[in-house]
Amino acid sequence: MAATMQDVAQRAGVSIKTVSNVVNGYPYIRESTRQRVLDAIQALDYQVNAAARNLRTGRTGIIALALPELSLPYFAELADAVIESADEQGLTVIIEQHGGRRERELDVLSGVRRHLTDGLIYSPLALGEGDEARLDVDFPLVLLGERIFHDPVDHVTMDNVEAARAATAYLLGLGRRRIAVIGVHPGEVVGSAGLRLEGHLAALAEAGVAPDDALLGAAGLWHRATGAEAMAAMLDKGVRPDAVFGLNDALALGAMHELQLRGMRIPEDVAVIGFDDIDEGAYANPGLTTVDPGRGQIARTAVEMLATRISSRGAAAPHRVVADYTIVVRGSTEAGHDRPA
Amino acid sequence: MAATMQDVAQRAGVSIKTVSNVVNGYPYIRESTRQRVLDAIQALDYQVNAAARNLRTGRTGIIALALPELSLPYFAELADAVIESADEQGLTVIIEQHGGRRERELDVLSGVRRHLTDGLIYSPLALGEGDEARLDVDFPLVLLGERIFHDPVDHVTMDNVEAARAATAYLLGLGRRRIAVIGVHPGEVVGSAGLRLEGHLAALAEAGVAPDDALLGAAGLWHRATGAEAMAAMLDKGVRPDAVFGLNDALALGAMHELQLRGMRIPEDVAVIGFDDIDEGAYANPGLTTVDPGRGQIARTAVEMLATRISSRGAAAPHRVVADYTIVVRGSTEAGHDRPA
Repeated sequence: MAATMQDVAQRAGVSIKTVSNVVNGYPYIRESTRQRVLDAIQALDYQVNAAARNLRTGRTGIIALALPELSLPYFAELADAVIESADEQGLTVIIEQHGGRRERELDVLSGVRRHLTDGLIYSPLALGEGDEARLDVDFPLVLLGERIFHDPVDHVTMDNVEAARAATAYLLGLGRRRIAVIGVHPGEVVGSAGLRLEGHLAALAEAGVAPDDALLGAAGLWHRATGAEAMAAMLDKGVRPDAVFGLNDALALGAMHELQLRGMRIPEDVAVIGFDDIDEGAYANPGLTTVDPGRGQIARTAVEMLATRISSRGAAAPHRVVADYTIVVRGSTEAGHDRPA
Repeated sequence: MAATMQDVAQRAGVSIKTVSNVVNGYPYIRESTRQRVLDAIQALDYQVNAAARNLRTGRTGIIALALPELSLPYFAELADAVIESADEQGLTVIIEQHGGRRERELDVLSGVRRHLTDGLIYSPLALGEGDEARLDVDFPLVLLGERIFHDPVDHVTMDNVEAARAATAYLLGLGRRRIAVIGVHPGEVVGSAGLRLEGHLAALAEAGVAPDDALLGAAGLWHRATGAEAMAAMLDKGVRPDAVFGLNDALALGAMHELQLRGMRIPEDVAVIGFDDIDEGAYANPGLTTVDPGRGQIARTAVEMLATRISSRGAAAPHRVVADYTIVVRGSTEAGHDRPA
């Protein structure tokens, strides 16, 4: 049978209260007493009951991160960054994948799973404007991404329009004029696809370059395979871009693979830029130029905001933080850039 | 205030028992009654209380997957495959990342987190032989990976030695003789690094090729960056391999990037093979030849074994399943292989 706190107290010859103080890291305990309790804990293989310990604070020390899909490297690396930031705050993270399915996304917000966690960092895909009421929950919540605009809760986001505008402006600055966009969601206005396309078109307009629908490659899912397929479909129609803007890195890498299979030289014939700055892009051949949307900053900010909410429930008005972006130049747009001088 | 089951019953004009039957999917309910209850649920925005529903079965419908690191694409894609298989079984997955740290790995096995889940699929890195007693837990558990050999619990694994032997034998069959191994853990016997090196050395011995320590590139972590660094260190010493076996795909991709930066042609000058068959490898330039360790089979088998354990606790003796591997040939070892004929 499992040892109880009472067993530990008895063996150490101290009160239960003293055992509790040791277990909870209470500072004012004589070192010899502390050592006796720790010896008894070890001898009895006593498992600290976190649930009981948490009765004191009403907290579990666990937060949840709900995201679309771990097979998208952006989200896998975001999860890693969130776990690292949470670790610095003494918080443990569990991850829930909702697959961008509306029903699953709603499950994340209600239901038994929220009982265990102190708060939620939530990156929805299917929920959007009009779902604000769903976010009126009775637990600490920080929102990630673009999907909901009139924020009733803390929200960490990136400036998709401005960052995409900068990506296209950069390609235009290299003298490229026929810029294919891979990953378009026709008709979408909000959401990353719609916002990034808006930024792209704004940059074209500023430079006086006429947009061309033949250069818009649709791809519903933003994976390597769909990027390669969209690129292939465009090339098969005889369209010949001199640059490609993949709306995320996976799309860009898929497109770059397809271009190279057809004997096109990157960047001489076609310059390629992505969006996300996933680790994989740095090791592609050539290295993938990309927009770094500030993933580390997003993760760190979200965890800090959530930790603040947890320790002061419902105190302050919702915050909105927009992460800084940067363009990371590599060999896929400028030859020779992969090896630092 | 949130609607209760009683509110739903009142509005639908049925008993609470009938509402409960509808919510729990009980089959023998008149369709018109079922529809009335569903209408009432919708009208009142009634949230089914999963905790209450689960009192009936004593289950939550949630399983946990504990793994080292999501920034390793193998584990991100494994997680995705487990979630997909669990979905088919009507199970939801939450993910816990332990980072290969012993203390965290032990936390996964005990503690508050296990209260919420029906069972655990567990891929440890730090625990190993001698820790079998830790696996004697009172919840359904399926083990993944190589770390513990005398299995007290269900275990799904791959044949690392045999699969690595096949990888090296394949390179030898192409006429390569100076095969660098990237990702070696000096002194390790158990664990993926030790087992895969053992397979590599067995293949050399079978072919009568003398091993050369200068061709063993150490890398503690199996990331792209460490693969590139190990490759660079070897090349800087003047070692000139005609093939590279990356002990996982990330290492192989990092090594391939470094080789190409230095102007070496893949596969003409150096053939490269990895291990894992992550999606990224298929879109590398050239595509990465690799060992597919049967990730889909591993995920499916683990979920099925866990589901069986959950529905028949403690019934059967532990099973051990070894997944089938295959070698996936792409352009990094045989030119022209990236485009199907």
